[in-house]
Amino acid sequence: MENAFFSFDGIDGSGKTTQIELFCQWLREQGRQVAQCRDPGSTRLGEAVREILLNRNDLAFARRSEMLLYMAARAQLVDEVIAPALAAGTTVVCDRFLLANVVYQGHAGGLDVAALWQVGQVATGGLKPDLTFLLDLPDGQAAARLDRPLDRMEQQGAAFRAALRSGYLAEAARQPEQIVVIDAGRSIDDVQRDVRAAAGRVLPSCKVI
Amino acid sequence: MENAFFSFDGIDGSGKTTQIELFCQWLREQGRQVAQCRDPGSTRLGEAVREILLNRNDLAFARRSEMLLYMAARAQLVDEVIAPALAAGTTVVCDRFLLANVVYQGHAGGLDVAALWQVGQVATGGLKPDLTFLLDLPDGQAAARLDRPLDRMEQQGAAFRAALRSGYLAEAARQPEQIVVIDAGRSIDDVQRDVRAAAGRVLPSCKVI
Repeated sequence: MENAFFSFDGIDGSGKTTQIELFCQWLREQGRQVAQCRDPGSTRLGEAVREILLNRNDLAFARRSEMLLYMAARAQLVDEVIAPALAAGTTVVCDRFLLANVVYQGHAGGLDVAALWQVGQVATGGLKPDLTFLLDLPDGQAAARLDRPLDRMEQQGAAFRAALRSGYLAEAARQPEQIVVIDAGRSIDDVQRDVRAAAGRVLPSCKVI
Repeated sequence: MENAFFSFDGIDGSGKTTQIELFCQWLREQGRQVAQCRDPGSTRLGEAVREILLNRNDLAFARRSEMLLYMAARAQLVDEVIAPALAAGTTVVCDRFLLANVVYQGHAGGLDVAALWQVGQVATGGLKPDLTFLLDLPDGQAAARLDRPLDRMEQQGAAFRAALRSGYLAEAARQPEQIVVIDAGRSIDDVQRDVRAAAGRVLPSCKVI
């Protein structure tokens, strides 16, 4: 069976976790082997870096340093998980990928966006998702959904979250074939229906609901 | 007083630590403020990354991931230590810098050398040492000097160490104005005399011994 690489992205609270679970379940029902992962994370090194990035409030981070830590975790994820899975014909579904780094540290964080894509090219060895689902939600709705303690990235305030959203939408407009914008302000079922329909671009053999 | 940024580089066992101490002592005797640092390290984040890189033998590292962790530590070092020190007119002396990353992960590690210089440009924000002292030592001599337990980088064997040396010499040949090769197989005093003489290129106001 042909492999495929999907990523889900969007600001915190946009419903990624739920949509990823439903999507992976559907892929498995289609008879696909599925590897589910998250960026940063899903390797021992990636989880160690994730811990530094999100939970070490005692550390100061230069924005470039923060960006490069995400890149380091991603390089490991590609080599240890994603590339071997794809080589084995598995469908990979990743919670975030390079796009999030470009948007958080570039569009919203002030680093040069083109430079981040270049560093990302080195970090990933050129591997890109076949399709990214961007779960788009007006900022007020996303914040209201988060009922758990916020991590370091999530604590940066409303203006930062608004810059994230506009960064995501700008990248989607620039790469419409790679990034599909999905209105995440609807019911779980409606959102999932759009995710599956869009996946059909990449998985012609899958039966779309 | 004009600032200056020096780095010392070379394979492990080449005598960097001793030479750096003597050089910093001499700079202070000249009435200079000196900031001494090491890359990776010298910030809380850098030390956390250094710990992951050198002492976590339980972790697997993709070469690109390893390289990006060094870059992340360096970005923090530049913003938190080196750039502020230079802005205050301080002379910075750093144990290793970007060159080591290019040589260890590029020349010896197999990553694309030009790509590493590009990522390094992003990581450092373009900041470069005014002069790098490359303490050069035939591999056999360097290995014989190390009488402590080896860290993860040092455990990679003789062929790796030989590739490091030839990588360093290749970069020095390519950038003779930025990198001065010093024969480190001589007495401490002889090596230090050459270091101070070479520093005179950058510090014309210093009295060379």
